[in-house]
Amino acid sequence: MQQVFTHLLEPRSIAFIGASNKVFKWGFNVLHHIIKAEYKGKIYPINPNGGSWYGQKVYKDLDEIPNNIDLAIIVVKKEIVPETIRKCVAKRIPVGIVITAGFSETGHEGGLLEKEIVDIAKSGGMRLVGPNTMGIFSAYPMFIQAIMASMSIKPGDVGVIAQSGNLGSSISYRFTRREIGISRLISSGNEADLKVEDYLELLEQDPKTRLICLYIEGVRQGQRFFDAAKRISKKKPILLLKGGTTLLGAEAAMSHTGAMAGDDTVFRAMCRQTGIIQVDTMDEMVDTAGMLLTQPRPTGNKVGIVTLGGGWGVIATDMCVSNGLVIAPLEKKAVAMIDKILPSYWSRKNPIDLVAPNHVTNITDSIGILMEHGSIDAALVLGLGYMSFRARRWLNSPVLPRADIEKSAQLMVGEEIKLLDLIKKQTKQYKKPIIPVIDIMASDEVTDNNLVKYMDRQGIMSYSSPDMAIRALAKVVDYYSRIDHYEW
Amino acid sequence: MQQVFTHLLEPRSIAFIGASNKVFKWGFNVLHHIIKAEYKGKIYPINPNGGSWYGQKVYKDLDEIPNNIDLAIIVVKKEIVPETIRKCVAKRIPVGIVITAGFSETGHEGGLLEKEIVDIAKSGGMRLVGPNTMGIFSAYPMFIQAIMASMSIKPGDVGVIAQSGNLGSSISYRFTRREIGISRLISSGNEADLKVEDYLELLEQDPKTRLICLYIEGVRQGQRFFDAAKRISKKKPILLLKGGTTLLGAEAAMSHTGAMAGDDTVFRAMCRQTGIIQVDTMDEMVDTAGMLLTQPRPTGNKVGIVTLGGGWGVIATDMCVSNGLVIAPLEKKAVAMIDKILPSYWSRKNPIDLVAPNHVTNITDSIGILMEHGSIDAALVLGLGYMSFRARRWLNSPVLPRADIEKSAQLMVGEEIKLLDLIKKQTKQYKKPIIPVIDIMASDEVTDNNLVKYMDRQGIMSYSSPDMAIRALAKVVDYYSRIDHYEW
Repeated sequence: MQQVFTHLLEPRSIAFIGASNKVFKWGFNVLHHIIKAEYKGKIYPINPNGGSWYGQKVYKDLDEIPNNIDLAIIVVKKEIVPETIRKCVAKRIPVGIVITAGFSETGHEGGLLEKEIVDIAKSGGMRLVGPNTMGIFSAYPMFIQAIMASMSIKPGDVGVIAQSGNLGSSISYRFTRREIGISRLISSGNEADLKVEDYLELLEQDPKTRLICLYIEGVRQGQRFFDAAKRISKKKPILLLKGGTTLLGAEAAMSHTGAMAGDDTVFRAMCRQTGIIQVDTMDEMVDTAGMLLTQPRPTGNKVGIVTLGGGWGVIATDMCVSNGLVIAPLEKKAVAMIDKILPSYWSRKNPIDLVAPNHVTNITDSIGILMEHGSIDAALVLGLGYMSFRARRWLNSPVLPRADIEKSAQLMVGEEIKLLDLIKKQTKQYKKPIIPVIDIMASDEVTDNNLVKYMDRQGIMSYSSPDMAIRALAKVVDYYSRIDHYEW
Repeated sequence: MQQVFTHLLEPRSIAFIGASNKVFKWGFNVLHHIIKAEYKGKIYPINPNGGSWYGQKVYKDLDEIPNNIDLAIIVVKKEIVPETIRKCVAKRIPVGIVITAGFSETGHEGGLLEKEIVDIAKSGGMRLVGPNTMGIFSAYPMFIQAIMASMSIKPGDVGVIAQSGNLGSSISYRFTRREIGISRLISSGNEADLKVEDYLELLEQDPKTRLICLYIEGVRQGQRFFDAAKRISKKKPILLLKGGTTLLGAEAAMSHTGAMAGDDTVFRAMCRQTGIIQVDTMDEMVDTAGMLLTQPRPTGNKVGIVTLGGGWGVIATDMCVSNGLVIAPLEKKAVAMIDKILPSYWSRKNPIDLVAPNHVTNITDSIGILMEHGSIDAALVLGLGYMSFRARRWLNSPVLPRADIEKSAQLMVGEEIKLLDLIKKQTKQYKKPIIPVIDIMASDEVTDNNLVKYMDRQGIMSYSSPDMAIRALAKVVDYYSRIDHYEW
């Protein structure tokens, strides 16, 4: 499998078979994505008509290429895939990605064609991704973006394996927009040869991958899958979105990639036992992975809440309790200390309602006291973003002369950034998660200093609503409680 | 109560008592929000120092104002609130909004002060909102935006009543950003005089309010509340986010607004019986309300799915089934008709996987057949947005000469808009919901033609992930099934 790893994920040369100048074809788009993303190796577009592809020489046949090829990407019509694979074998290409669709997912006839291409590849020692795959992305070391989806993917340390290219792409995009990068994205397609089990073991060995996200409709080798998951979960968290959890969903999966979904109750129990983190939606996957990647490990399930508004504290408390998190009672010492910095009528318990604090230090001092004397494992800070949102409204007000307001507004925007910086510092200092919830008003702001993007760039995941933060925290706490020895 | 309605929500004149020039004070910000939003009545800022507020004359005292006042907004220090109310009574002001905090929510002493102001008001026939309220917004006819939060609120037909100003504001903002407007927003504060029950009855009578959203931590007059909800639900859907559903959350609510949360199981059962739609998050509230407001009424729970990618269909099926929706089997006639327009290997069942359709009409024809011959009550269209997302990447590609690509790109962007227009048309034609799910890649696009904003402006709610659409649809279907006679 080391060979597959090298040739599939680190190819120095690629033959792109089925290059096209027609913009509506995959032979155009996938090639465009590879070249646009500045693949560092050598790419050989191939089309029987030859010519050129926007300045790139197009070869008429594999034979014409003088050098060795690590990876073939195949986008030709399904009828000529067998012949193409035969040529690849003759050229001793070790791995091929068959993007072409119309195989076993379409029925019996397609299944026969699929068997044929696998047999040809096998007899020549060639391994196949797909068919009916959306392609792969691999950030290191060559930066190959050979996928159907048109978005730019940020390089990073999340590995994505998906039995749906659309979902794999959408998940990768969701990470990228939060400044969390992807190491590898593999759309496994019909898995005629290489399977999700293989890819999982590849990413297990991959030093560039710190966390693995899966979209799976069914596994073909259950024992192997769960054995691998159990080993890997202790080193790298595995997050799983499962398709086909219902009978009808499983039927839909059958006609999608031909995957057998199996019994969901058994599958779910196996996931829990092997340390897999099951999520219900793509957003939950990114929320949870982001917390695992950007926050310290919570030492338990006791939560402290600091809130800039009472209502946030109430719904966050409900949400914590119903997700199995504990609202830790405030120790006397902590109450006495906070008494000195907040107005006399503050809540005097967890959640700490700051009741419109006067200074940024009221907030960070409260967090500090909670961290040092609160016997908690993680903190939530709710209701951030209003200060700078308000200040920006001052600046664009037709009522207020800009000169009168500018200084105060800049100060207020600066204070909010200062607050976020301090929260980041405290997170490092106390080695416990301090999770910022930045209201959606501020998240939406189109400015250079958008607070969410600011924190994303700082490598701290924030949330636009308490429920998202708490659901993710509950998953994270549950994960660590199931893993005996975590070796990250 | 008609008097309260008129003076609170349609005031022709406002005394703003506690006007301030200091930008960090509420006496500055709330006044700024009123004036910036161009309140159409007459506003009288009051401060003992007199002078002016950015060109607006400031009166030294209520006495100085020559005219009648409909509404007093009170932002003075808590110690002088009683005296201020006394003056309002003397001036025969019928309603006052007490934004000032520090009353019953802070303990016994504050409670006595609260009782004092209520007694003074009552003796003079004056009604009070608050204290400890964030204020109100009322779109019609005067456009008064007397709230702490700085966002602009779009006028429309959603009424919001909240026992947390922050949540009320955040909910109103979430609607506004989706081009759904607010008729009235009332932050009820401590409810020392007017209560959520009163506001609910006000909105019942309000011809400008078509749908009501509540954030509630507790009701003081349960029987009255549920009686009203039962009446109203038949005419206007009521969506409720409940705070204090857990014992600890209820405790937090006590120190927030002093509301008694009561037994959640009983409360939840009462909600179901009276037709209230309970939601778990603010986002779910907006997703569900948006569907109620912008889509035709679904006639039942049978769903048809049209998808531009197999994976979307699989997770959507799971999500429908686990939310109590039925994936309707495709009738033979429908299969035969779709056979004629899709490639031979299409899924041949619901979900209809379009397998990378060649033309926009493949998609709308499939929807049309599903609508006419599918015996379904609502349709989901999944995987929208990729076409124009791709085309925009062509346009900003350093590899492709713009001249070569421009025509195709414009065509593709145009096709996607055309598709959305056709879906809107079909929604009207078939009088059933056809719910577009536009992938988050496209939702994020910063352009004049952002597809989500385009649909928002067209008055069709779209969703950035199937789970959001399906959760909302399930709530909508459940609501109509519980309402015997709906008189909308």
